[in-house]
Amino acid sequence: MISKKEFTKLHKEISTYVHRTPVLRSKLLNGLAETEVYFKCENFQKTGSFKMRGATAAILALSAEEREKGVVTHSSGNFAQAVSLSAKSLGIPAYIVMPSSAPQVKKDAVKTYGGKITECEPNIKAREEAARRIQEDTGATFLHPSNDLNVIYGQGTAAKEFLEEFPELDVIFTPVGGGGLLAGTALAVDFYAENCKTIGAEPFEVDDAYRSLKSGKIEFNETTNTVADGLKTHLGDKNFPIIKEQVSEIIRVEETEIINAMKLIWERLKIIVEPSCAVAFAAVLREKENFRGKRLGIILSGGNVDLGNLPF
Amino acid sequence: MISKKEFTKLHKEISTYVHRTPVLRSKLLNGLAETEVYFKCENFQKTGSFKMRGATAAILALSAEEREKGVVTHSSGNFAQAVSLSAKSLGIPAYIVMPSSAPQVKKDAVKTYGGKITECEPNIKAREEAARRIQEDTGATFLHPSNDLNVIYGQGTAAKEFLEEFPELDVIFTPVGGGGLLAGTALAVDFYAENCKTIGAEPFEVDDAYRSLKSGKIEFNETTNTVADGLKTHLGDKNFPIIKEQVSEIIRVEETEIINAMKLIWERLKIIVEPSCAVAFAAVLREKENFRGKRLGIILSGGNVDLGNLPF
Repeated sequence: MISKKEFTKLHKEISTYVHRTPVLRSKLLNGLAETEVYFKCENFQKTGSFKMRGATAAILALSAEEREKGVVTHSSGNFAQAVSLSAKSLGIPAYIVMPSSAPQVKKDAVKTYGGKITECEPNIKAREEAARRIQEDTGATFLHPSNDLNVIYGQGTAAKEFLEEFPELDVIFTPVGGGGLLAGTALAVDFYAENCKTIGAEPFEVDDAYRSLKSGKIEFNETTNTVADGLKTHLGDKNFPIIKEQVSEIIRVEETEIINAMKLIWERLKIIVEPSCAVAFAAVLREKENFRGKRLGIILSGGNVDLGNLPF
Repeated sequence: MISKKEFTKLHKEISTYVHRTPVLRSKLLNGLAETEVYFKCENFQKTGSFKMRGATAAILALSAEEREKGVVTHSSGNFAQAVSLSAKSLGIPAYIVMPSSAPQVKKDAVKTYGGKITECEPNIKAREEAARRIQEDTGATFLHPSNDLNVIYGQGTAAKEFLEEFPELDVIFTPVGGGGLLAGTALAVDFYAENCKTIGAEPFEVDDAYRSLKSGKIEFNETTNTVADGLKTHLGDKNFPIIKEQVSEIIRVEETEIINAMKLIWERLKIIVEPSCAVAFAAVLREKENFRGKRLGIILSGGNVDLGNLPF
């Protein structure tokens, strides 16, 4: 596990490649939450999500020899774009396996950032096989979007910046999908805060992380009927031990609460956030009576939405 | 006409009541425009639009006696919200005449900001009559959203901030509807810039300002079939002389260009802007070959949209 000193050094190193994102506030949203809420805008991060931090951290951790051979991942979402751009920034090849069914707009985004796309059948087995074949052919290093310690550390740098700007935060909320952002945030909170908690937020429809924290082992989702399409994955053996030790609680929210929270953020903060991202604010609104008088930080994880397919 | 010294003083005075809004940039949008573009985010202004500046300036210009009697305006849009909140901030009553057909969400916004609504038939004659009746009954001062010198000066403070942060801007673009923002911007450019031009942007469908600048007299629109619903009005005798003297050019854009520009700003800057607001960036993209190598400032005028009725 990383030390505080190494974490601080990592943050400094990735700062060349990622934005220090702004923190926004709104009187009206404070009123609705009945306390003070601070929004850390990773939707303004390069490639539109916090994943840029973890991808950059993972690539920086590679040896010179590994870097030369490039990196490979399978993703149809934000991690594909993040790996593509961070690889490009560091001058190495990025091989992205995407299901043939992925929307053209996502393929185009990966291409714009310089990722080399390999299309495969739209199932997890085909994706893993295609990635393995690329590893064998090119010697590229496989990067997992959430179950990789360097990725986890990178994601945690958002919370470090948040606490530098607002050291008085009592809680930091993040959405939880694969668990990388939540685990990284919990580590940063442990390193850089005195009396701050880390809380995860998750749709009832994919409450694997909630159940994992209850049972003490990694649980899975049998169905994934949620508007929060970035949160359909499950925890992994690298991030779950951190979450188990450092995360106070996971709050579950209804689909209508996610859509309502997303709409409030759009209308009041005038910024674009994706449904997965709105889950954390939905959790704050749902359980506001438990957070009276607390200063609540929310990591707005990303802003990549399909404007042709909005939930309102 | 105001002096530079008075304008500087006015800006200082209204700064207590309005936000100093941030300026955003995007590599991708620079690429599309083929030059450097700076976006001054008045969509993040209080009440979601630049109108807060002009309303505050107009109220600050009133005598103590006038203030006591309050202000009245007729508007179904951003000016109604701006007058309501600035009157509230300064502790005076605001009477807002709104057509009975105005969307509930707009009525609610005015109520939230403390405006006292009088509903009337949805035509301009009924609106003017209702406002006149309130003036007679209460002694309130009528505020015009764009054809009032103090309102014009207030709107110009956005450009002053813009030039303070980026003194090297070669052009500042604004949308033009009633002409208050364009005239105020042109004044600020005249006061605070060395070699900067002010350019207006307008839909072909409501090109009254373009025609006015050509003919030398205030022209009107016979039809108003535009998605940019804030730009359907015409210039007035207070702002037109300033525009005639200080504005280089008005660029007209097609409806599809407005929607495309709005979508690009949403997708790439991850911020919410209203259609009227996107007109200025549409003008930059339409005539990019004329602005090669120039540093272009765009005032993003507002972000109040009906999420249930988007043009894409």
